[in-house]
Amino acid sequence: MRLRLTPRDTTYFDLFTTLAGHVVTGVGLLAELLGADKAGREEIAARFVEAEHDADGVAHDITKRLNQTFVTPFDRDDIYGLANALDDVIDAMEEACDLIVLYRIEQLPSRVSEVVQVLQRCAELTHEAMPRLRTMEELSEYWMEIHRLENQADRLHRKLLAQLFDDTTDAITLIKLKEIVDVLEDACDGFERVATLVETIALKES
Amino acid sequence: MRLRLTPRDTTYFDLFTTLAGHVVTGVGLLAELLGADKAGREEIAARFVEAEHDADGVAHDITKRLNQTFVTPFDRDDIYGLANALDDVIDAMEEACDLIVLYRIEQLPSRVSEVVQVLQRCAELTHEAMPRLRTMEELSEYWMEIHRLENQADRLHRKLLAQLFDDTTDAITLIKLKEIVDVLEDACDGFERVATLVETIALKES
Amino acid sequence: MRLRLTPRDTTYFDLFTTLAGHVVTGVGLLAELLGADKAGREEIAARFVEAEHDADGVAHDITKRLNQTFVTPFDRDDIYGLANALDDVIDAMEEACDLIVLYRIEQLPSRVSEVVQVLQRCAELTHEAMPRLRTMEELSEYWMEIHRLENQADRLHRKLLAQLFDDTTDAITLIKLKEIVDVLEDACDGFERVATLVETIALKES
Repeated sequence: MRLRLTPRDTTYFDLFTTLAGHVVTGVGLLAELLGADKAGREEIAARFVEAEHDADGVAHDITKRLNQTFVTPFDRDDIYGLANALDDVIDAMEEACDLIVLYRIEQLPSRVSEVVQVLQRCAELTHEAMPRLRTMEELSEYWMEIHRLENQADRLHRKLLAQLFDDTTDAITLIKLKEIVDVLEDACDGFERVATLVETIALKES
Repeated sequence: MRLRLTPRDTTYFDLFTTLAGHVVTGVGLLAELLGADKAGREEIAARFVEAEHDADGVAHDITKRLNQTFVTPFDRDDIYGLANALDDVIDAMEEACDLIVLYRIEQLPSRVSEVVQVLQRCAELTHEAMPRLRTMEELSEYWMEIHRLENQADRLHRKLLAQLFDDTTDAITLIKLKEIVDVLEDACDGFERVATLVETIALKES
Repeated sequence: MRLRLTPRDTTYFDLFTTLAGHVVTGVGLLAELLGADKAGREEIAARFVEAEHDADGVAHDITKRLNQTFVTPFDRDDIYGLANALDDVIDAMEEACDLIVLYRIEQLPSRVSEVVQVLQRCAELTHEAMPRLRTMEELSEYWMEIHRLENQADRLHRKLLAQLFDDTTDAITLIKLKEIVDVLEDACDGFERVATLVETIALKES
């Protein structure tokens, strides 16, 4: 329990909630893209680039505020780390969208949409957790659930890899699909890094 | 030379030694798996998952302790970094085991066991060095030897890659073997990150 | 604006300028290697290894100085991060040179030299910016230009990937070329991380 010299700066909580909102938007676009035809995909990927720019703006606001204020609601490094970790999740999802368009993928394995469903659940939980950083209450359910979802995504990812190598006879197609599937796994890992940071922040405050 | 307000907290040294012990167990399982037939491999990979869970528990104990104590034997960031770096080594080795099983590899190139021998030597040296963090003595031999071993592993890795591309005509087999070989190189790099952190900690204390 | 207890330690600025000078040397060697025949490439890659060792020496000097002094011209973590980020750029470029030799690449796609031109511009700008850390003046032009160049490199990279998958029918050749192209993109990202760190440092001082 540390002394606070000033009232907590609430804006950080608002900025993190906004940033996590862009994560929810992003994963929604990714899910939409999976169901679209090739023409639709390009348009959705373009919308993702816009969402990514908006998120970059919010992350930049957090960094700027951080570098210009003395009193922060929790450790500067953790604020900086949390903004970057949320940004990394968005970047990974944007890369997945972009690769699906760039590689002109005809058909993704059906398990990919299961992975995206896990990502959607992670995004919603993360978005709901951000305002709770203010009181540090009811956060343990959030990070435990994210760890459970990440384990589930990991098992799905390994099944997906095994299936890809079983079903794909063309090596070039395999290279494309494997890269997309690996990038989606990076996005899942990114949600876990966000949750671990939140856990670290909460433990310091307890 | 900084003032110490309380006696050093010895438990961190014990926890790091225990964690490095799990690294030694892990590399032993990896070596065992290389020599096993397909049925044996699955069972060994399952035992590695258990070793990894044990290691996760120790890393979590370190983080928790870190977040609840004011006085630490060296910088909090370095303690956190060291626990994470040891954990990353175990994760990389577990991934290698898992991929060998998942990809149903028939025959690994013979140089792979040379790489694993280097990993074993790194694990033993790391395990022996952890208790010496208490006195900060005789650590320079450790980190110099790890840098030497990492250079050796790097040369082995590049020879392995050249050999893989020379000997493998099937692209899909090549993708599988290359991923395994690259993950083993990640494990070697991980030992070097651990040694660099130890060097940083020791220099600060000198 | 923080109080300074002693005059700024100028040696850090000199060391960063020297380190960035090695980055300029490295990218020059990479450009030279692209234009060389196979025999010439090996000799140039060997010279890159020497440049990398020199750079490692400078980075190590920075770390050592950092761990033995109390007063630093800006945050210790930022000094350490900047040295590492510059080192990572050199490592990525060395890896690209090494892979071109190791994989005995006959013909790189022509756009690769466009990417290397962007890397050269990034290296020069970074080298010119390092001495300006002393006064923190005229740095915003530098980081804005790096962000612009990184965006340009990113678009080039995606075009290169699309072209590789269109033009390459042999999967094993594709694996080799894709790895080289991805490592060059890592080098570009590395320059952006350097610029982001410089921005962070400058904002704290403003």
